[in-house]
Amino acid sequence: MVDKIEIIGLAAAFLTTASFVPQVYKAWTQKATKDISLTMYLSFFVGVALWLVYGIFIESLSIILANSITGLLVLIVIALKLKYK
Amino acid sequence: MVDKIEIIGLAAAFLTTASFVPQVYKAWTQKATKDISLTMYLSFFVGVALWLVYGIFIESLSIILANSITGLLVLIVIALKLKYK
Repeated sequence: MVDKIEIIGLAAAFLTTASFVPQVYKAWTQKATKDISLTMYLSFFVGVALWLVYGIFIESLSIILANSITGLLVLIVIALKLKYK
Repeated sequence: MVDKIEIIGLAAAFLTTASFVPQVYKAWTQKATKDISLTMYLSFFVGVALWLVYGIFIESLSIILANSITGLLVLIVIALKLKYK
């Protein structure tokens, strides 16, 4: 049963991380980010950075990996937001 | 040391959850969601739902609480996206 639970956790991590790819793609190609909240992405980025610290402390590879990639994607959204605001 | 680590986890959960409030507020008041990726929010919602299932299985109140509230906020963003697309 543990395996089945961890597969759910990994699927959850994959989806919440990968979900930022279409947002990056949309902002990048349309060069428009007016409707995106900068406050949301700044707060989310600090949260993801803390999740990464948490993952390192509890030695969870899933949390470390998912939040490293999410943090990178969120940073790109923030950069695009500042560029095309 | 466990306490300090859990405080980091709770702060991370609070920030990544609360971050959606300014996005809901922005979309709600400005009645504009054109630059928001629907694919991102749909994928994120399914991911959050799986995190919730994961949290219930591993009996983590933090994961259950954070993802319940995040799921609700993400649903509102999706509804506003469909309304003002």
